[in-house]
Amino acid sequence: MGMIVRPAAELRALATGILLGLGAPEAVAGRVATALVESNLVGHDSHGVMRVPMYTAAIRAGTLDPAGALTVVAETPATLFLDCGWNLGHYACAEAMRRVMEKAAAMGIGLAVLRHCDHTGRIGEYVSMAAEQGCIGQVTCNGSLPGGLVAPYGGRGRALGANPLAWGLPGGPGQPPVFLDFATAAAAHGKLEVAAAKGERVPEGWIVDRDGRPTTDPREALEGGAILPFGGHKGYALGVMIELVGGALSGAGFPLLPDYRWDQGTVLTAINIEAFQPLAEFREQVGAFCGRLKAQPRAAGVEEIFIPGELEWRTRAQRERDGIALPEVTWAALLDEARAVGLAA
Amino acid sequence: MGMIVRPAAELRALATGILLGLGAPEAVAGRVATALVESNLVGHDSHGVMRVPMYTAAIRAGTLDPAGALTVVAETPATLFLDCGWNLGHYACAEAMRRVMEKAAAMGIGLAVLRHCDHTGRIGEYVSMAAEQGCIGQVTCNGSLPGGLVAPYGGRGRALGANPLAWGLPGGPGQPPVFLDFATAAAAHGKLEVAAAKGERVPEGWIVDRDGRPTTDPREALEGGAILPFGGHKGYALGVMIELVGGALSGAGFPLLPDYRWDQGTVLTAINIEAFQPLAEFREQVGAFCGRLKAQPRAAGVEEIFIPGELEWRTRAQRERDGIALPEVTWAALLDEARAVGLAA
Repeated sequence: MGMIVRPAAELRALATGILLGLGAPEAVAGRVATALVESNLVGHDSHGVMRVPMYTAAIRAGTLDPAGALTVVAETPATLFLDCGWNLGHYACAEAMRRVMEKAAAMGIGLAVLRHCDHTGRIGEYVSMAAEQGCIGQVTCNGSLPGGLVAPYGGRGRALGANPLAWGLPGGPGQPPVFLDFATAAAAHGKLEVAAAKGERVPEGWIVDRDGRPTTDPREALEGGAILPFGGHKGYALGVMIELVGGALSGAGFPLLPDYRWDQGTVLTAINIEAFQPLAEFREQVGAFCGRLKAQPRAAGVEEIFIPGELEWRTRAQRERDGIALPEVTWAALLDEARAVGLAA
Repeated sequence: MGMIVRPAAELRALATGILLGLGAPEAVAGRVATALVESNLVGHDSHGVMRVPMYTAAIRAGTLDPAGALTVVAETPATLFLDCGWNLGHYACAEAMRRVMEKAAAMGIGLAVLRHCDHTGRIGEYVSMAAEQGCIGQVTCNGSLPGGLVAPYGGRGRALGANPLAWGLPGGPGQPPVFLDFATAAAAHGKLEVAAAKGERVPEGWIVDRDGRPTTDPREALEGGAILPFGGHKGYALGVMIELVGGALSGAGFPLLPDYRWDQGTVLTAINIEAFQPLAEFREQVGAFCGRLKAQPRAAGVEEIFIPGELEWRTRAQRERDGIALPEVTWAALLDEARAVGLAA
């Protein structure tokens, strides 16, 4: 598969132009484009600019409204319930996290719950935003294809969404945020599709076939099987909680139930560190711990122990410098989208 | 090993009497005894009355103060920073969760951070408390033996504590709370000790030997090896976040660093569901989802799909009815403790 390399700024401008051409206000187009390119920069290309055609199709189909207003459903000095008007989650989540941090600055903690929210994108971005402003951020969301993707522990049918968790805080002095961002599914659906297309096997423990038997053939999961939760019953329990909190608190509902409509029941919190410790002291502590953790003796064959988020920041520095490599087919699809809205691309 | 069966009420009264005899105020003694017996009832005997001699030894040594006052270090309408005066975590956490729920009733969310807190016990109890009052509760804590117990992902030395996470919410109509409560370690230290004493092997993926090589011999973990995080790099990242949030926000510090003193940096949140949805509607949604999840097709050889917390509530009903079985040695130790404080046992 041929690859093409483009600087981040060019991809950002291109994605912004496409979204503007489809009626997104400047604030939305800029924010979504930034989020997409940020995903490419940190190495999570599955959430990057390759998603643009998916969003443009949804905008043209009328299920996603890039001009949809964010409406406050209910509010307290510490909490916010936001109807996102079926706008893009990249915009809604960033705006919600901004307002949550304002509440946290006054109240020590802030919480937002979102409904009628299209794809949230890479939720690690919003906890990094919080961390860069001196907060501890946590984000979860439910929402999936109808019926779900992930089997319950002990089950063989699809029932749960990928139900990701992101959690981040400021890094040591001069260091970027420490953060995690993972699906409670053992593997992303997209990774199975890629492996199936290449005729490759996937690691044990990722998937089951239609009878609930472990398999390493991704086609068996895609054709009636299911993805497993990560980490056995613990990862399963975490996925159930993210499903319930997101679906029931927001009213977005559950992919497993009838009459489900695609939505992302999203829950964002920010804790203001200064309500408990001076931020500089907190960061000293984080830095001291992370330094010692990285210096721990390694298992045989392991070259380096990583702090959560460290690989992402390293990739970001490299791609910011060298550009972002995209499959030629992705690049061609972006140019098609640009031409479709009348951009000279 | 001989076993003896006693009703919950008798164990509660015995543990209360022992703690009163060692200077605990009635509120502390009653709360701690209730928490210990609650752990036995739901099937987590490792956190039950067998812990009493550990606490009495710490009280006699002066490192644990059952009369220690809870002091507010800082407070906002939504948050609380509490110095627990080295009192028992069972008391401090329950009291903190009570105050957090008061804040959530007014503000939609409440948060407490605890320091100078002895063993928190089974943290699933505090999220169940929140759930029974119409809240979503979340609790994490760090703290461990100096040096830690759990290896980083890719490492072979002990570095992290067991760093548990508990999360719970109200169950469907007429149902008990749905909750999870797990260590981010693949296995509890106590389980390794029990297996080693019996000369048994443990499952693959739990432990490494002193060279970081996977093993199933628990003695190799106990003698210079380490416990692994559950769920690979995801469980590791979760353990690191719980370590950092608990240790740095509370100031309790980290077992990995020099000059560490045993403490449990504990973070409790409660979200008032009624700030977002009518509680009855929320519970209807949870009930509909859980009913459908339980009815999913099962994998070969699996008899039942469980909702998180369901096994605990089932065990609780059985033990409330039939009594709690204790090893004779545990029972004898309790009677010794009772006699030591002058109770006619």
